[in-house]
Amino acid sequence: MLHYLKFEEYKDAFRFLTLRRENGILEVRMHYNDGPAKWSGYDESLHSELPELFQCVTKDPENKIMIFTGTGHEFLAEWDRTDESEVFVSPQQWHRLYKDGKELIQWFLDVEIPVIAAVNGKCFIHPELPTLCDVVIASETAVFADKAHLTDTRAVPGDGSHVWWPMLLGPNRGRSFLILGEEIPAAEAKTLGFVAEVVPQDAVLDRAWEIARTLITHDPLVLKYTRVSLTQHMKRRFLDDLGYGLALEGLGILSLAQNASGSKGWSFTLPDTRHE
Amino acid sequence: MLHYLKFEEYKDAFRFLTLRRENGILEVRMHYNDGPAKWSGYDESLHSELPELFQCVTKDPENKIMIFTGTGHEFLAEWDRTDESEVFVSPQQWHRLYKDGKELIQWFLDVEIPVIAAVNGKCFIHPELPTLCDVVIASETAVFADKAHLTDTRAVPGDGSHVWWPMLLGPNRGRSFLILGEEIPAAEAKTLGFVAEVVPQDAVLDRAWEIARTLITHDPLVLKYTRVSLTQHMKRRFLDDLGYGLALEGLGILSLAQNASGSKGWSFTLPDTRHE
Amino acid sequence: MLHYLKFEEYKDAFRFLTLRRENGILEVRMHYNDGPAKWSGYDESLHSELPELFQCVTKDPENKIMIFTGTGHEFLAEWDRTDESEVFVSPQQWHRLYKDGKELIQWFLDVEIPVIAAVNGKCFIHPELPTLCDVVIASETAVFADKAHLTDTRAVPGDGSHVWWPMLLGPNRGRSFLILGEEIPAAEAKTLGFVAEVVPQDAVLDRAWEIARTLITHDPLVLKYTRVSLTQHMKRRFLDDLGYGLALEGLGILSLAQNASGSKGWSFTLPDTRHE
Amino acid sequence: MLHYLKFEEYKDAFRFLTLRRENGILEVRMHYNDGPAKWSGYDESLHSELPELFQCVTKDPENKIMIFTGTGHEFLAEWDRTDESEVFVSPQQWHRLYKDGKELIQWFLDVEIPVIAAVNGKCFIHPELPTLCDVVIASETAVFADKAHLTDTRAVPGDGSHVWWPMLLGPNRGRSFLILGEEIPAAEAKTLGFVAEVVPQDAVLDRAWEIARTLITHDPLVLKYTRVSLTQHMKRRFLDDLGYGLALEGLGILSLAQNASGSKGWSFTLPDTRHE
Amino acid sequence: MLHYLKFEEYKDAFRFLTLRRENGILEVRMHYNDGPAKWSGYDESLHSELPELFQCVTKDPENKIMIFTGTGHEFLAEWDRTDESEVFVSPQQWHRLYKDGKELIQWFLDVEIPVIAAVNGKCFIHPELPTLCDVVIASETAVFADKAHLTDTRAVPGDGSHVWWPMLLGPNRGRSFLILGEEIPAAEAKTLGFVAEVVPQDAVLDRAWEIARTLITHDPLVLKYTRVSLTQHMKRRFLDDLGYGLALEGLGILSLAQNASGSKGWSFTLPDTRHE
Amino acid sequence: MLHYLKFEEYKDAFRFLTLRRENGILEVRMHYNDGPAKWSGYDESLHSELPELFQCVTKDPENKIMIFTGTGHEFLAEWDRTDESEVFVSPQQWHRLYKDGKELIQWFLDVEIPVIAAVNGKCFIHPELPTLCDVVIASETAVFADKAHLTDTRAVPGDGSHVWWPMLLGPNRGRSFLILGEEIPAAEAKTLGFVAEVVPQDAVLDRAWEIARTLITHDPLVLKYTRVSLTQHMKRRFLDDLGYGLALEGLGILSLAQNASGSKGWSFTLPDTRHE
Repeated sequence: MLHYLKFEEYKDAFRFLTLRRENGILEVRMHYNDGPAKWSGYDESLHSELPELFQCVTKDPENKIMIFTGTGHEFLAEWDRTDESEVFVSPQQWHRLYKDGKELIQWFLDVEIPVIAAVNGKCFIHPELPTLCDVVIASETAVFADKAHLTDTRAVPGDGSHVWWPMLLGPNRGRSFLILGEEIPAAEAKTLGFVAEVVPQDAVLDRAWEIARTLITHDPLVLKYTRVSLTQHMKRRFLDDLGYGLALEGLGILSLAQNASGSKGWSFTLPDTRHE
Repeated sequence: MLHYLKFEEYKDAFRFLTLRRENGILEVRMHYNDGPAKWSGYDESLHSELPELFQCVTKDPENKIMIFTGTGHEFLAEWDRTDESEVFVSPQQWHRLYKDGKELIQWFLDVEIPVIAAVNGKCFIHPELPTLCDVVIASETAVFADKAHLTDTRAVPGDGSHVWWPMLLGPNRGRSFLILGEEIPAAEAKTLGFVAEVVPQDAVLDRAWEIARTLITHDPLVLKYTRVSLTQHMKRRFLDDLGYGLALEGLGILSLAQNASGSKGWSFTLPDTRHE
Repeated sequence: MLHYLKFEEYKDAFRFLTLRRENGILEVRMHYNDGPAKWSGYDESLHSELPELFQCVTKDPENKIMIFTGTGHEFLAEWDRTDESEVFVSPQQWHRLYKDGKELIQWFLDVEIPVIAAVNGKCFIHPELPTLCDVVIASETAVFADKAHLTDTRAVPGDGSHVWWPMLLGPNRGRSFLILGEEIPAAEAKTLGFVAEVVPQDAVLDRAWEIARTLITHDPLVLKYTRVSLTQHMKRRFLDDLGYGLALEGLGILSLAQNASGSKGWSFTLPDTRHE
Repeated sequence: MLHYLKFEEYKDAFRFLTLRRENGILEVRMHYNDGPAKWSGYDESLHSELPELFQCVTKDPENKIMIFTGTGHEFLAEWDRTDESEVFVSPQQWHRLYKDGKELIQWFLDVEIPVIAAVNGKCFIHPELPTLCDVVIASETAVFADKAHLTDTRAVPGDGSHVWWPMLLGPNRGRSFLILGEEIPAAEAKTLGFVAEVVPQDAVLDRAWEIARTLITHDPLVLKYTRVSLTQHMKRRFLDDLGYGLALEGLGILSLAQNASGSKGWSFTLPDTRHE
Repeated sequence: MLHYLKFEEYKDAFRFLTLRRENGILEVRMHYNDGPAKWSGYDESLHSELPELFQCVTKDPENKIMIFTGTGHEFLAEWDRTDESEVFVSPQQWHRLYKDGKELIQWFLDVEIPVIAAVNGKCFIHPELPTLCDVVIASETAVFADKAHLTDTRAVPGDGSHVWWPMLLGPNRGRSFLILGEEIPAAEAKTLGFVAEVVPQDAVLDRAWEIARTLITHDPLVLKYTRVSLTQHMKRRFLDDLGYGLALEGLGILSLAQNASGSKGWSFTLPDTRHE
Repeated sequence: MLHYLKFEEYKDAFRFLTLRRENGILEVRMHYNDGPAKWSGYDESLHSELPELFQCVTKDPENKIMIFTGTGHEFLAEWDRTDESEVFVSPQQWHRLYKDGKELIQWFLDVEIPVIAAVNGKCFIHPELPTLCDVVIASETAVFADKAHLTDTRAVPGDGSHVWWPMLLGPNRGRSFLILGEEIPAAEAKTLGFVAEVVPQDAVLDRAWEIARTLITHDPLVLKYTRVSLTQHMKRRFLDDLGYGLALEGLGILSLAQNASGSKGWSFTLPDTRHE
């Protein structure tokens, strides 16, 4: 039999994730060379590491609560531009993103322990990641926007953002948030209800740990089943429409790439906009 | 044939509910010895009387509109602690709560006449009861919280609260409301949209009657079909996830009870916290 | 083969709709003799023209973005009372409204290009029409209410309003909005999230065009698939409950009409209330 | 508190149902003056008694398994024609059938103990009643058809038959069964899978009891949860489309009646066809 | 206002469809130069004409029942190979098929009158077309198979076949039918329940007319609402998964085409297999 | 980053599964000491290895098609009784089975390549495992039954059997199959449509390989998306009801165990029946 990994085996296995665990509370911190996290579609990237991390978390029964945070002044707001060459997009390449995209959300929701987000700053890429958490603590400096689709990469927001933001904000603000590239600061996010508490930046992680230490006194099954009960409808909504959205996003990117590259073949480059 | 009960037959049949009816408007008032209502899982309790009341309401065609209110300064915020002995919990005992829990919500939604809540004060236990009503009038003193699960009894919020609060508050505030035991006062409830109007405590019931008297001028079928149209999606959501949540809550309680009692057997006691 | 209509063929085909198109951006303006739009159930009416318009928009690939607006100081707030005679309602007559009612929503959602609403004023009849749009720009003078059902015509709000307002406002404010006939002004609509921006009345249309001109720089497939991704769940919800709501609304109207007319037969007249 | 009825209290309360119970196995036998059962929409009829019976069964925990059977050579194949006068149909009258129709199916599915059908003969009216049971034992003489809609009363098959027969027979045979009024004899029903066993007529009830006596050795919760698990999807399907179908059936009947009666008012008479 | 077309206006508008109407019964016959129908993805083709036909049928209230048939010895089994040149497939080109594919099924289901199929012979392409009809009469010579996907064009069966055949045949035979390219002759189709009756080839159309003439005696609203009731769940299933399947089919075809064409660009040709 | 396992790394990692791969076709053979497979809930068992296997299959892109088979004369019909001591069941222990049970089905359906079953003999435990495959080839000696629930272990059939058999056999035969413990031989399984082909026992595996070798000529994305299209609705149905069924099965087992053990504590033993 394959053995599920123990904490010691996976805790140092990630290049863009730092893990620590204390009495069953697992803290997962995204970073890039220990600075603010960056996103990319490269083979080695947060995009590929996060689904694996979620599976490790799920399979190791020693994890009772998870805290999810970033590094420095940003939660997730920059692209990794190590490789500035053009990416030629084919249906096969899109398939990897389609598959990763489904797993990123599905395996996150399959984590059957409470997850607390400590949003330490701007979240411009995959802002569904922190907001899918059960309790979201945000820094006063946090800002939420979806800069990975229409407004920046010019792609269809079909990777789950089309499911989640209309759930979070209602069908109308959810749509205009994605179409207009709106930025929502922490204070408004709290009023809108998708952030539970707003605290100073240096208090975000402590507050998350404080809540975790309170929750962990609960019976472990009660914690698990609370998580399961509260995510069942979210799973249904993503199952209904996530794969479809990703397939449409792929068709749109193939179209974009084909048009952009003309006779040369297909290419797709990251947006020039940097958010510092 | 069994005959559906007439008002005269059921109006005095409840120990914890006082009924009066005037021109088709039925007022249902919860109480405990005519003071503020208390909740329990005892055989004779609001928990068992309310589903029966809902069936009486539904079956008697003389009821055209229902007003649902409490007594004194609280809507529903206290436990009945008459029997302070330990409750030994078995799968059989949980089954009764599972069954009652499904009926409580299902039969409430099956009431096919408009229901107006007059929330006269704090609602800390089953706060979905008043908020499932079509129009919710709240006292300035009303406060809404779910004290029957995680934060107090330490049980999974699987009895419909996991369905309803994410519907009412969005998936994120819905989850943190349940996990953190948040209290939402009437004024904020109005801003959040789950209360229609906030009035002084002594005006709550009058305002509910005023609305009822306006509504009752409508064609009875129009009133019924308005209720049916507006609750169909709510029924679907509860059917999808209510039974499952209750089953998970039961498994969690069996675990809690087993752990608490050790070799002695299982027991489960009410939380110590009193909300006065 | 039948040929889909070109813009030149349908642009002048509507009596209550004025169309203009510029570089793929189609502006649809409702009007009544070039004044503010009026609503009716007559054979020739906005009710019958809009579904056809939506089909023309969908079928003509030259339309890339649609702007939907009204005329003068109202978006849609008045009844056309040209024919003041009583309408005798039969199941056959209701069937036409049932069919049109389903088509009005379904064909609107089937428009596979982004739709921007420029809400130039009060919207008291079918307020779902502008709010179903992907981005809603509202005049400071705009007010939203449903005056076509309970509070005015005394009919069941079963024509999609029962689906949409609980989606937009949550299940509780959605219900009380419909039952109490609440009016929501533009500023509050923005806070509630169903309006994206509020601007002075004379800037509404310009702002819509500005957004349209930004959006149209996108790849046409990206625009289409964004629209499809973001409306898929809305289609599901309307498919689930729209037909049912319309059938119940019809049964209620037949009841109303029968009661109103007594031995004379059935009749149904428009509400007296005028909203100027 | 209202008390749920004990067996002694409800066993003689029905005019068209004979009940006996032995060691937790409840046998419910439909009859008409102790001959073969007849159906009608009268106030006192099987249509009104069955939902009440189902509620009695559900609420009395002494019922562990239910057997559902008919009398003599027919299960349910005849109309009660006691009152041969024309029935004038109004929206109000249809509402009663709409309500009863929903309750008939919903309360049957809410019975949380296994139900075994002993189909003693022809089942031409509401053939979903025996087939909704968990195990269906049929006499060699049994025949299944839906004679209460299109082919005989000329009404829309919207009372659940539109949900159930396509589930039982697939979408195509389900549709043609209802549209063409097809008769399916017991042997073919077994091949098609909606009857579990076919036995001689005089062995039907004994075989049902035999199965019941085997099943009753199970843990009562196991029996209940088996029933619940196996009916959950059926409940979802009926919730989705039962009310809608009934509303459409009502609109169709109002149309039929109006057309039939011309200036005289509305009337609706039973089909002439008798199935003996 | 645009005017819905009258029969006289659209009856001669189709190149591949011959229409005749008698007392409200509309017969639609597919053909190719008046011989057996052929299928293609060309701009002028059955694929583009059928959705338009379905809309004409729906909008013209003089149509009460529709009969759908083919010409000669085949229902639909051949490809139109007029243009033997390679088709270069781009995301834009696929989009047209995606859009047509959704409309083909959706607009067929939106036809709100009963539809009877007279399947005059082999049906190897889009075999869902005749089987979506409410009553399917098949010639003894009819054979059903899906030759437009895996086994012949090598494409994903994502255009609705993935929804419909598992509904018709159960999830397993539905899958193997599509994956193995199984042929099902008429007699077995009747046993399986997706064909209602099997008759000699020259009797197919007569039998369809005979049924139509019986059905047309029903109240028109009863016919419509029967159709609506019986197709509501089918619409839900297609809405859930049709668009997604088409998007996946497109991504697969882009992959196929890219691989097939290598450096030359993309091309896609029809299968060599001819089914005569 | 954690690296997904290559075939060489996982092919020998399983105690109860033998793997071989040839040109992308992966054969997975269940066994017990290389004889017929046995089932148990032990920590090391097929129950725990299969979900892991499914994840290895999914993550390794070199797998293009999977064949799933057993050893000798049985597919899966015996319990592993190595440890004959009583199992004491607690909510915590059930939780592991609940979690494994969800993963067993979910991760199987998440395998995004075609899966062919080669059913070499009796399948009495988890008969959904082979029948969930896309193409099922069965030996003439194969027999299908669910002996792991009501009839043998006396547990609720809530582990997905309650979802799958009613999907495969229709709601009625699905229910009676589970309640009566019916055995369905291969030939009837083919007639019923849940087996695609029946061949002699020694030809089963060869036929599966033959089909695999035909399928593998397809574009890999076409194969993947065919699998995804055809399993999407199955995923929805399992997501809807699998967790709930498992929770109910757990409550039933806790009840059984408690009753069986009386004052001694809880225990649960395997059925005595052996199926040789």
